[in-house]
Amino acid sequence: MLVVMHSHATADQVEQVLGAIRRMKLTPHPMPGATRTAIGITGNVGAIDPRTLEVLPGVLELIRVTKPYKLASREMHEADTYVKLPQTTIGPGTFTVIAGPCSVENEDMVLRTAEWLMARGVRLLRAGAFKPRSSPYSFQGMGLEGLAILDKARRRTGIGIVTELMDTDNADAVEQAADIIQIGTRNMQNFSLLKRVALASKPVLLKRGMSATLEEWLMAAEYVMAGGNYNVVLCERGVRTFSDHSRNTLDLSVIPPVKKLSHLPILVDPSHGTGKRDYVPAMALASLAAGADGLLIEVHPDPDHALSDGAQTLSLPGFEKLLESLRRLAVPLERMLN
Amino acid sequence: MLVVMHSHATADQVEQVLGAIRRMKLTPHPMPGATRTAIGITGNVGAIDPRTLEVLPGVLELIRVTKPYKLASREMHEADTYVKLPQTTIGPGTFTVIAGPCSVENEDMVLRTAEWLMARGVRLLRAGAFKPRSSPYSFQGMGLEGLAILDKARRRTGIGIVTELMDTDNADAVEQAADIIQIGTRNMQNFSLLKRVALASKPVLLKRGMSATLEEWLMAAEYVMAGGNYNVVLCERGVRTFSDHSRNTLDLSVIPPVKKLSHLPILVDPSHGTGKRDYVPAMALASLAAGADGLLIEVHPDPDHALSDGAQTLSLPGFEKLLESLRRLAVPLERMLN
Amino acid sequence: MLVVMHSHATADQVEQVLGAIRRMKLTPHPMPGATRTAIGITGNVGAIDPRTLEVLPGVLELIRVTKPYKLASREMHEADTYVKLPQTTIGPGTFTVIAGPCSVENEDMVLRTAEWLMARGVRLLRAGAFKPRSSPYSFQGMGLEGLAILDKARRRTGIGIVTELMDTDNADAVEQAADIIQIGTRNMQNFSLLKRVALASKPVLLKRGMSATLEEWLMAAEYVMAGGNYNVVLCERGVRTFSDHSRNTLDLSVIPPVKKLSHLPILVDPSHGTGKRDYVPAMALASLAAGADGLLIEVHPDPDHALSDGAQTLSLPGFEKLLESLRRLAVPLERMLN
Amino acid sequence: MLVVMHSHATADQVEQVLGAIRRMKLTPHPMPGATRTAIGITGNVGAIDPRTLEVLPGVLELIRVTKPYKLASREMHEADTYVKLPQTTIGPGTFTVIAGPCSVENEDMVLRTAEWLMARGVRLLRAGAFKPRSSPYSFQGMGLEGLAILDKARRRTGIGIVTELMDTDNADAVEQAADIIQIGTRNMQNFSLLKRVALASKPVLLKRGMSATLEEWLMAAEYVMAGGNYNVVLCERGVRTFSDHSRNTLDLSVIPPVKKLSHLPILVDPSHGTGKRDYVPAMALASLAAGADGLLIEVHPDPDHALSDGAQTLSLPGFEKLLESLRRLAVPLERMLN
Repeated sequence: MLVVMHSHATADQVEQVLGAIRRMKLTPHPMPGATRTAIGITGNVGAIDPRTLEVLPGVLELIRVTKPYKLASREMHEADTYVKLPQTTIGPGTFTVIAGPCSVENEDMVLRTAEWLMARGVRLLRAGAFKPRSSPYSFQGMGLEGLAILDKARRRTGIGIVTELMDTDNADAVEQAADIIQIGTRNMQNFSLLKRVALASKPVLLKRGMSATLEEWLMAAEYVMAGGNYNVVLCERGVRTFSDHSRNTLDLSVIPPVKKLSHLPILVDPSHGTGKRDYVPAMALASLAAGADGLLIEVHPDPDHALSDGAQTLSLPGFEKLLESLRRLAVPLERMLN
Repeated sequence: MLVVMHSHATADQVEQVLGAIRRMKLTPHPMPGATRTAIGITGNVGAIDPRTLEVLPGVLELIRVTKPYKLASREMHEADTYVKLPQTTIGPGTFTVIAGPCSVENEDMVLRTAEWLMARGVRLLRAGAFKPRSSPYSFQGMGLEGLAILDKARRRTGIGIVTELMDTDNADAVEQAADIIQIGTRNMQNFSLLKRVALASKPVLLKRGMSATLEEWLMAAEYVMAGGNYNVVLCERGVRTFSDHSRNTLDLSVIPPVKKLSHLPILVDPSHGTGKRDYVPAMALASLAAGADGLLIEVHPDPDHALSDGAQTLSLPGFEKLLESLRRLAVPLERMLN
Repeated sequence: MLVVMHSHATADQVEQVLGAIRRMKLTPHPMPGATRTAIGITGNVGAIDPRTLEVLPGVLELIRVTKPYKLASREMHEADTYVKLPQTTIGPGTFTVIAGPCSVENEDMVLRTAEWLMARGVRLLRAGAFKPRSSPYSFQGMGLEGLAILDKARRRTGIGIVTELMDTDNADAVEQAADIIQIGTRNMQNFSLLKRVALASKPVLLKRGMSATLEEWLMAAEYVMAGGNYNVVLCERGVRTFSDHSRNTLDLSVIPPVKKLSHLPILVDPSHGTGKRDYVPAMALASLAAGADGLLIEVHPDPDHALSDGAQTLSLPGFEKLLESLRRLAVPLERMLN
Repeated sequence: MLVVMHSHATADQVEQVLGAIRRMKLTPHPMPGATRTAIGITGNVGAIDPRTLEVLPGVLELIRVTKPYKLASREMHEADTYVKLPQTTIGPGTFTVIAGPCSVENEDMVLRTAEWLMARGVRLLRAGAFKPRSSPYSFQGMGLEGLAILDKARRRTGIGIVTELMDTDNADAVEQAADIIQIGTRNMQNFSLLKRVALASKPVLLKRGMSATLEEWLMAAEYVMAGGNYNVVLCERGVRTFSDHSRNTLDLSVIPPVKKLSHLPILVDPSHGTGKRDYVPAMALASLAAGADGLLIEVHPDPDHALSDGAQTLSLPGFEKLLESLRRLAVPLERMLN
């Protein structure tokens, strides 16, 4: 923490700030400069809210220095985290493709898709039984019945299940059905939900909030980790900006900073990121080249009749073509598709 | 819904789109133009997802025409909504000031604040028992104990209580303690929570999401109304933009469009909107002049030692001065402070 | 400037940074903390680019402390700036309304509008002879002929002229015709143009860039002031955000920070800010209440047939009604319309 | 263009809108629906400003259908544009790397860099003689002297020159010195400058504005093309969003829509896009995978002592390593580095 004093601040005002810092049991380091004094603060800054220093007379500005996340930070935990699943492992060196329909629509479709994916080496199926929809009048998902279908698909084909949890009421059921519990964009700062999945026995896929800074995102991961669940996988899915050429602005530029500041793996969801099927393959390839650890991608045997998100969903042949391109691209990058 | 065809689209491709529309039980209206054909669609468009038309050959773009909200819309319900409370009524003609500390810190502070407010004509107290904090290591609120304190404040002073609900687990307790149930910014699209408060017997104060469009915000209100609770009060509290001169960008410009498109009352929270105590009075006065129906504002007997949000909180004398300015400004605007 | 070292930084790395700072002729202030060392820097930081420190081994982050603007800053120049014109003065205490059509369309219209405005106490006319249009196929303004019309309007009615300069080629002509030279949003960081108007004998109205931070805006003002022209008037006109309920997001929340950090007057343009005539009056009133020093507003005798921006332009009766509302609202705010 | 009527609009109001459309010499296509009437408009819509229809009684909304750009549009010009230079050609199939220091600092450095680049197959040098700097107190570039150095570098080594033009005053000199004239981010909508380079005999590299939509960007290209210069190369360089993990938000997701909507080549500038040297290689590789036609990238023999932008600049060994990675990645993508 750094306190920047006004250039006209009096010696008394500087003294008053030093006293306030000491009363917080912190150590002030005054630095008198040509035009103004700045005061560094060391000690356990995290425990208090030093924003109140900002309103003392003569204070121009308060600048926070330390990052608030600890468990999610690479500074505290240098080695990369690998999230181990019965079906595969997510983390550097490999590139994990998770695919499937937006929502569970019926048993036949899910089983067919799961078999098709397993036959092509894709070992994780994404599909929502509970669907967050911006309209109360839209299809809200099959609920528990959908979970049962997913469970059947796993038992029948061996595929791993990635599915979304929307509220604590359904936490037990989703925890049981899922191999990875997905927390959606709109719930990234649903702190009650984060505290619940912190207690879960399954890894958590944490989608970035619509307008979350990297710090807020890592703090959401910190909620899960602080509660005891260290298996967190981040997922970039596009953010909200002024830009209107696609549904969201897929922020691939977040990948290098995530890798620098955190040890957690990061996936990319180019389907929600772009909102348009035509743009998905280019963004999927770019995610691999940018250093992401995998993809979350919407595919459907008949996307034009999907109950939700059809316009951004690849057909099976389209997805198969993309898989081949990814495999070829992985070679010079020394990555293995899994 | 309007389908815009590519300028090179063939007659066959146009015919194929017309057929697809008819198979959806909708009526196509082809409009051949100089450079391209556009096709209007009428019928019950809301029931299907016509985004799938976008991927048919020859289609350039799909343009949605109708607004998806109905109950929240002024088109469907022309008269202004007045939300009636035991203590006062929120809606046009008056200007309702809701004030209090960010969080319930202890009984004494809440009681003193409530008495002080009632003595000055402020009849609604805001204070959080459950606090959404971006860090798991920050003070998370007093929980049920905090609700008990709020309940006592109401019985003792007659003041109305506005307090936040963060999850369905605590819904019964908050519903009982509150006169208005607050849904926070980060939960604006927590659809499970919206469905729960749709069943509540108390009005809902719905804060705008950090990066919610007006349509998404009204759709969140629609969730509450579609479930049977018509007493929704909107609250603008600043949005997330590139701008860094204040904590958030308080979007007062949303007030006229809200009034045009919806019949629901709208308040402004200049405390979270600016994040800085110095900027709150100017934004409070501007909210009144812009046509808002009231304010949600943070005041504290000792803001510099508040457990949360001290830097954006007014002291009691600072708030009293603002109240006087608001009263004077209300006169030429023909509004009554309450 | 503050250098934050990595928590694992070695003593050698810290020493290396201290040496680098000293070689820049600056003074380092090391602050060893519990988890990491931070190093404050004092001296003439502005003269060098210390971003290069960021890439030294062991450095986590570099935090800039001092503001780069000087002449535009209230710290350096505490008293409010009043911009004096032959017709009126812009600055605190008054509220200056500048009105007129988007563009000069013909002599008759300009003369009639100028007379109408003067008769109602509005002493500054805005109208563009050179128009920045996003399409090369749109009406680009009357150019020099338009300037001649404005000049005639001033001689005939005594009204002051506010008109835009788009390039250095026309600088002499605009400087002569204008009482205030307007620099448009898209040219806020056209540094060649800023350097030219820095030499002008007329005040400069500097519109905020579409996505300019407050610091960038004040730095653009600094360009004009550093070149010798101290008569700068800022003008907020809406910024670019995700929000789509109006043409731009009018950022009234920038007014208190501008007043805190700078001594320059600030106007608001609610016409471009909202893009819709219906929303203009509410935002004009809110600008006054928020502490702006005046308005730049589009009015037209026949807005529905204006050659540009008709949809956001008030009719004369609509504007007259707004003027009356502004006059009434100014009373409790102790401001004088001029 | 589509006019959406209010659900309560009367038959008279609909009739009035039909009349207004016909008076504009356009053809209205009324579509009566269950809840409201919509009116399609065909004819030469571009020539008028139909926003004025929006304010007629009973009109709810106006929706624009046609794109305003023509020459830049793939609909009008299906074949990809290849921009031919003496040294190389920019366009699909190849991947053109343009590299060099932020600014021309002295002759020796430029010559050495040019030779080094040519020896590694990089045939275009970027370096600014005129520098847009946000502070008037920062190094503003060497100006004409810098152009002379660039000219010498070309004559000596054969390398092509990409350098920025900031104003019409220096247009002749830059046009002569450059093989590609760069228009910077802050000048994307400097329409006077665009009109000048429309007359130039050299190709134009048009950087995307800080908060430009794709449509605005293509309209800026349209200005250049409408004036007669068809050799336009687009360059994505990061946009302004809420996100703070890098200097700007590099928007790689714009590449597929650019390729769909336009025939112009597009480069990416990962140096300005990220602002941090560490993040540049990942984004460079991702640009290639995403389908960009090349890179604009900052390299410097001694980046830590560069006069500008050092922190985002690669060293020569760092750049050489990146070139090798790009070459390996180009193979499975069937692209040729040039």
